[in-house]
Amino acid sequence: MGKLLLTTADAIGQALVARIAAGEFHQGDRLPAERELSEHYRTTRITLREALGQLEQQGKIYRELRRGWFVAPPRLIYNPLHRSHFHAMVERQGRVAETEVLDARPVTLDHALAQTLAMHPGEEAWRISRLRRIDGRAVLYVEHYLNPIWFPGLLTADLTRSLTELYSQRYGIQYGGVRFTILPGPLPAFAAPALKVAAGSPGLFITRINRDQHNRIIDCDHEYWRYDALCVDVEA
Amino acid sequence: MGKLLLTTADAIGQALVARIAAGEFHQGDRLPAERELSEHYRTTRITLREALGQLEQQGKIYRELRRGWFVAPPRLIYNPLHRSHFHAMVERQGRVAETEVLDARPVTLDHALAQTLAMHPGEEAWRISRLRRIDGRAVLYVEHYLNPIWFPGLLTADLTRSLTELYSQRYGIQYGGVRFTILPGPLPAFAAPALKVAAGSPGLFITRINRDQHNRIIDCDHEYWRYDALCVDVEA
Repeated sequence: MGKLLLTTADAIGQALVARIAAGEFHQGDRLPAERELSEHYRTTRITLREALGQLEQQGKIYRELRRGWFVAPPRLIYNPLHRSHFHAMVERQGRVAETEVLDARPVTLDHALAQTLAMHPGEEAWRISRLRRIDGRAVLYVEHYLNPIWFPGLLTADLTRSLTELYSQRYGIQYGGVRFTILPGPLPAFAAPALKVAAGSPGLFITRINRDQHNRIIDCDHEYWRYDALCVDVEA
Repeated sequence: MGKLLLTTADAIGQALVARIAAGEFHQGDRLPAERELSEHYRTTRITLREALGQLEQQGKIYRELRRGWFVAPPRLIYNPLHRSHFHAMVERQGRVAETEVLDARPVTLDHALAQTLAMHPGEEAWRISRLRRIDGRAVLYVEHYLNPIWFPGLLTADLTRSLTELYSQRYGIQYGGVRFTILPGPLPAFAAPALKVAAGSPGLFITRINRDQHNRIIDCDHEYWRYDALCVDVEA
């Protein structure tokens, strides 16, 4: 006793990584509260937060608003050239996928979206907003914009299913060519809460414009990903 | 006088955007100092910084460490499936490219790099570290790792040039297949200073493994981009 330990942020970070590696905390586990950790390591909250911030930067832990710190799962390997059969892709990587439908309704196209879909401004498209989880963690907020002409009655279908399968089984439409853009940037206020991060947190905005087997543009996706949830991987 | 104006961050942001749109500030221009702006808008530094932070999130301005705020240029449209003829790509988009060689030397391969290059750990590869600018702004810190067997004498060549051209003209090597991964995440401490951002600022880490016309792995690139400098665009 009587000895004051001045633990550095580096040392705390290494100790936490060692505890994760030793299996004391598993992927997706919540770490003890900051107060508890700072008492355990006999350090200040400032030093502890520095340590946690370093681990966050290394992708080893992540934070959820008001919930605390969690051990980070591996990133999803994602090839946007392949059709986004989200559930199949996630399950092939040994993980559990979930889709929640947040909203599905007709919307009036603005100029930019009309151009994307090769439709006219003011025309109606269908917008399906969904939240997708991997192993229970929300990683992707996505808005699908569909040209209704190809999909009569789709809005009343079970939209928690793969759209790819629905297109194929119900409408005989297969995906053909795809064009995608990846824009890194802060997550907008309409997507961040569903992903349980603060608006402005770093994210990845991926748009995909999809054509069918006859090279007609059938839909486009606006995907908002947690930056730490995926690794884009393309071979050509 | 005697009237205290309480300007909101939103109002200041709109005023600044209007001044940029009106041509008072051009792309790449430095904005007036924060003190000057807060006096001009009769507001606190806190509110002013909130306004500047909002514009940064919208991609309209960006910050350089210790230098201040600048009007953001458009993002580079980048297709990693095409060979990184950086100068040609930038110039096709009507902009000015520059390459600075930071370092070029033999390095001993660790396990991960050896695997990437289909070489053995402990073998020597060549590492060329370069900084690339668009219109004078540092946007990309890149490390090229080359298998020396294909490129005798390359380290003494003019490495500010396009490697693509050098490979082709001096060694008869053309690029063939490519595999790339895109990993969004904080910029590491060895790359951030050259890009004039704080370590941990959001960035994009792109790795590319390149094969030649005979399908042999010839080099790999580790690219560290400012997140706001590029938009990845791929069509297939």
